[in-house]
Amino acid sequence: MNAYVADFSAFSAPQTSRVEEFIFSSSFDRPTLVIDRDAVAHQFRALRAGLGRASIHYAVKANPAREIIETLVGLGSHFDAASRGEIELCLSQGAAPEHVSFGNTIKRASDIAWAHSVGIDLFAADAEEELEKIAEHAPGARVYIRLIVDACEADWPLTRKFGCAPDKAVDLVARATALGLTPVGFSFHVGSQTKRAAAWAPILDQVKSVWDATREAGFELSLLNIGGGFPAFYTDAVQGPTPYAAEVMQLVEARFGTEVEIMAEPGRGMVAEAGAIAAEVVLVSKKSENDMHRWVYLDIGRFSGLAETEGEAIRYQFATLREHEGKGPCVMAGPSCDSADVLYEKRPVELPLGLRAGDKVVIRSCGAYTSTYSSVGFNGFPPLDVVVI
Amino acid sequence: MNAYVADFSAFSAPQTSRVEEFIFSSSFDRPTLVIDRDAVAHQFRALRAGLGRASIHYAVKANPAREIIETLVGLGSHFDAASRGEIELCLSQGAAPEHVSFGNTIKRASDIAWAHSVGIDLFAADAEEELEKIAEHAPGARVYIRLIVDACEADWPLTRKFGCAPDKAVDLVARATALGLTPVGFSFHVGSQTKRAAAWAPILDQVKSVWDATREAGFELSLLNIGGGFPAFYTDAVQGPTPYAAEVMQLVEARFGTEVEIMAEPGRGMVAEAGAIAAEVVLVSKKSENDMHRWVYLDIGRFSGLAETEGEAIRYQFATLREHEGKGPCVMAGPSCDSADVLYEKRPVELPLGLRAGDKVVIRSCGAYTSTYSSVGFNGFPPLDVVVI
Repeated sequence: MNAYVADFSAFSAPQTSRVEEFIFSSSFDRPTLVIDRDAVAHQFRALRAGLGRASIHYAVKANPAREIIETLVGLGSHFDAASRGEIELCLSQGAAPEHVSFGNTIKRASDIAWAHSVGIDLFAADAEEELEKIAEHAPGARVYIRLIVDACEADWPLTRKFGCAPDKAVDLVARATALGLTPVGFSFHVGSQTKRAAAWAPILDQVKSVWDATREAGFELSLLNIGGGFPAFYTDAVQGPTPYAAEVMQLVEARFGTEVEIMAEPGRGMVAEAGAIAAEVVLVSKKSENDMHRWVYLDIGRFSGLAETEGEAIRYQFATLREHEGKGPCVMAGPSCDSADVLYEKRPVELPLGLRAGDKVVIRSCGAYTSTYSSVGFNGFPPLDVVVI
Repeated sequence: MNAYVADFSAFSAPQTSRVEEFIFSSSFDRPTLVIDRDAVAHQFRALRAGLGRASIHYAVKANPAREIIETLVGLGSHFDAASRGEIELCLSQGAAPEHVSFGNTIKRASDIAWAHSVGIDLFAADAEEELEKIAEHAPGARVYIRLIVDACEADWPLTRKFGCAPDKAVDLVARATALGLTPVGFSFHVGSQTKRAAAWAPILDQVKSVWDATREAGFELSLLNIGGGFPAFYTDAVQGPTPYAAEVMQLVEARFGTEVEIMAEPGRGMVAEAGAIAAEVVLVSKKSENDMHRWVYLDIGRFSGLAETEGEAIRYQFATLREHEGKGPCVMAGPSCDSADVLYEKRPVELPLGLRAGDKVVIRSCGAYTSTYSSVGFNGFPPLDVVVI
């Protein structure tokens, strides 16, 4: 895939070009994420077409722009909130409390109490102490237990931070019951950017075995939260959202049947392709007369929105107005006085040879996990601006 | 070094305990950095006592709290600014423009022009294109050329992001001269947290060789900017600020004599020990009945202020009100729904066995690089609060 040709055939958000046109025809005085609410709506419909009867809980943390939440409320989306702040946001845009789940397994007691007071009735947990907090501050609430699963095909296999091991699952359901809560089922996460739907199969097998053991222990289960992991297009081809989601649902129903309530939590897969960042080249240089590569410094870096370049994990694509020029490899870095603020060095990026300070650069597929990772003012630079079109 | 005994004898900021007392006697509704301006003043005086005739340019990026800048202006400090925003801050607190250097080698042309218009006359550069921007937008300005050096003893050896290789140094000085600028000297950086002053010697040798070659080529040089790298106490013992700075100056003057103007840019070494973060335990759990370690989740993590735990680089110390209890190893993590938001996992941390949700935790030596790395609202959590006492 050539990084500089606007070839959208491999992915399914043709509206992204609207964002790119907007960026090239506008002026920005600082790095700005431009996001297209129509493209988000398009993606929601595409995912829903594949997910069928499953309810979609948009993972607000991926991009909490008010207009995105408002758009999704209008389309009938539900929401997965990580904090009191995200719940407040969803409710302020018209979401019904019964359509908002408090999906963070790590919640302050005061936030649980507040959520309960505004009508939130579905909480995640993966530990005894969390269940005790929920039982005390949201008595009787519905809870689902998050499981650790072995994911092997995600771009970012998750750590063990979230979830309990299978050996604790039945005990936690029993504990929730004893505390007067209503344990309704389990959740898991296949890992961010799981590119092939087929990779879900072995993970669903793991969850099914816990599910069966819990039912055999005498507990009713009615809800399976399949989490996120729905991929976005960055550099490598990914399955389109509808066939991907449909294949996931087939795999789910082959194991859990068609009666169990299913919820899915796409975040990145909902908004990444709908946004692009307007950036600018600040400096192009060579460190030494003998250097193989140029260094290209942008006005945005790891601490002002591109946090997901950590370890060069996400490979963003770049577009400039010099696409007709010859290209050569560059090391790319951000503008801060921080030596860790380097975007791509191990695998340099091909950029036009004539690139120079002041040139505009579009960074594609930036709709997810950019604006909120942005630091509040590192090095005195303002946070990433956001414009919704 | 036991992480839980308040033994301040090994480092030189006894005022830090004032911060800790304040935290344990106050209530906070979110994670809060408490910083002691008297401790900053104490550290400034300690560094000045060692640095002697060198001018101190505080690296504002380490902590741009208004009160810190105001305190340092009052003590006669100069400032190293990374951006227009930092220059504005310094000037607003009474710093004279001739005491503020624009030390970022990556500057927008419009920011150079603005800085020039308010009287900033000293700029860093490491590339031809940067010199051209400075010559156009700050004609005649003084510039120093940043060099890449091989640092081996820093906790964080810097990447090649900043500076030019020695083979370009003379050419850049010549280019600056040809552009009508006033090249006054060189800068370098030994690397963050260089714990022994003796580690500066081989680096100063590298710089001296470039310095001599430049003078032999017929250029006058009057300024050596020795940058930062002054260490703070985290877990490993470090030399006190006065003897450390004095030894550095001896090493400098043994090579560059006593006539050359010297500037130093401590940031972390000025403010880290003067601050501590008030945090709270949100959850303590075990993932499996067979797990060796507990997981302790705090209300602050990598994306809300503790960015420097990336790669477990900086080992913060923690204090609780359970110091009398037995201790055991914990994996520590932040509160966000991000699996990368883990603070210490490879090397677990010893914490009291009775620790539980709601317990207050003090995180020591957090005065530098916390509040500004904090994300603007990741997961809907507000940025790190800052209180100056």
